[in-house]
Amino acid sequence: MIQELTISTHGAGLYDITNQVARTCVGGGDGLLTLMIRHTSASLLIQENADPEVQTDLQAFFHRLVPPTTDPSMSYLTHTYEGPDDMPAHIKSAMLPVSLSIPVQNGRMMLGTWQGIYVFEHRNAPHTRRIAAHYAG
Amino acid sequence: MIQELTISTHGAGLYDITNQVARTCVGGGDGLLTLMIRHTSASLLIQENADPEVQTDLQAFFHRLVPPTTDPSMSYLTHTYEGPDDMPAHIKSAMLPVSLSIPVQNGRMMLGTWQGIYVFEHRNAPHTRRIAAHYAG
Amino acid sequence: MIQELTISTHGAGLYDITNQVARTCVGGGDGLLTLMIRHTSASLLIQENADPEVQTDLQAFFHRLVPPTTDPSMSYLTHTYEGPDDMPAHIKSAMLPVSLSIPVQNGRMMLGTWQGIYVFEHRNAPHTRRIAAHYAG
Repeated sequence: MIQELTISTHGAGLYDITNQVARTCVGGGDGLLTLMIRHTSASLLIQENADPEVQTDLQAFFHRLVPPTTDPSMSYLTHTYEGPDDMPAHIKSAMLPVSLSIPVQNGRMMLGTWQGIYVFEHRNAPHTRRIAAHYAG
Repeated sequence: MIQELTISTHGAGLYDITNQVARTCVGGGDGLLTLMIRHTSASLLIQENADPEVQTDLQAFFHRLVPPTTDPSMSYLTHTYEGPDDMPAHIKSAMLPVSLSIPVQNGRMMLGTWQGIYVFEHRNAPHTRRIAAHYAG
Repeated sequence: MIQELTISTHGAGLYDITNQVARTCVGGGDGLLTLMIRHTSASLLIQENADPEVQTDLQAFFHRLVPPTTDPSMSYLTHTYEGPDDMPAHIKSAMLPVSLSIPVQNGRMMLGTWQGIYVFEHRNAPHTRRIAAHYAG
């Protein structure tokens, strides 16, 4: 079963899509759910869903590890004409998951208690992000 | 076929689970094995299984890239009340695999000669780690 | 359906394998394609296929994040006898994808408009890289 999810983002950060995925992509019984984000400047992520500070800290860490190209430390980068947040977004999307595979038992994703599924948007401007989903029961 | 593996860890580092996975999760014939770790402070990893120094060096690199929150360079992090190794563990678990997909041929995982499967524990205290496994033949 | 792709690399960098994968690994109808690279010093990557500067910049970023062991900042690493680019290659292969899962619709991989599939070679010497591919329709 193939589906496509659409997520609207409004700036860099994490967007919880756990419920939307559970509602629309998971079939009954046992199976395997696969998600793939169809972009190279945003990522998928499974992360802690309890304390929102974890999400803020994750974003802060990767922003420091891969700062905008206006930062002097990034002056060696050449792909800058789409904005200072564009090439860093490609780098982050290389380091963070483009696809996730989630076993499903009795129609429920086998996520741990503290795991949620997120889109990690790396661009500052609003974007419409599309995620391809495959479920095999 | 859904299974769950349980791995006991006793401090940060790599734990070889290749044999346990081969023994309990892989069906016969050709197929696809999927593993997903049900935690946000430990990772799955496929890495070199020959020289143990590779594992020590991997751990050292990620410890320097993402030091404990007691390190002055990490003072911007806010999620610190679960201990200085907690938020770095979440960051490492974002950068390293949460799920792995391994083609199987004639009942054998198609790992390369030098590839083993590991749990990469990021926390210092002992933990029981659960891995969801799905096999489709 | 299990297949194995062979890619010849001649130095560190990204090698576009999108067409080879589409031609030889994808069956008809809807399904799921899984790729796994059988090495610990090269990676798989889905990245932008439009501007070649993105690929140069990606390589430059990871080369600076994980420089050769001849760099003084890497003097703590111990696994150095296979050359100064060997342990960094293992580290990069931990941070970048070893396996990719790509939903397929009507016999076409659901890649986004700007997404291509690459082997990211981390070693300087020529290598023959093998990729295990599994397709389930």
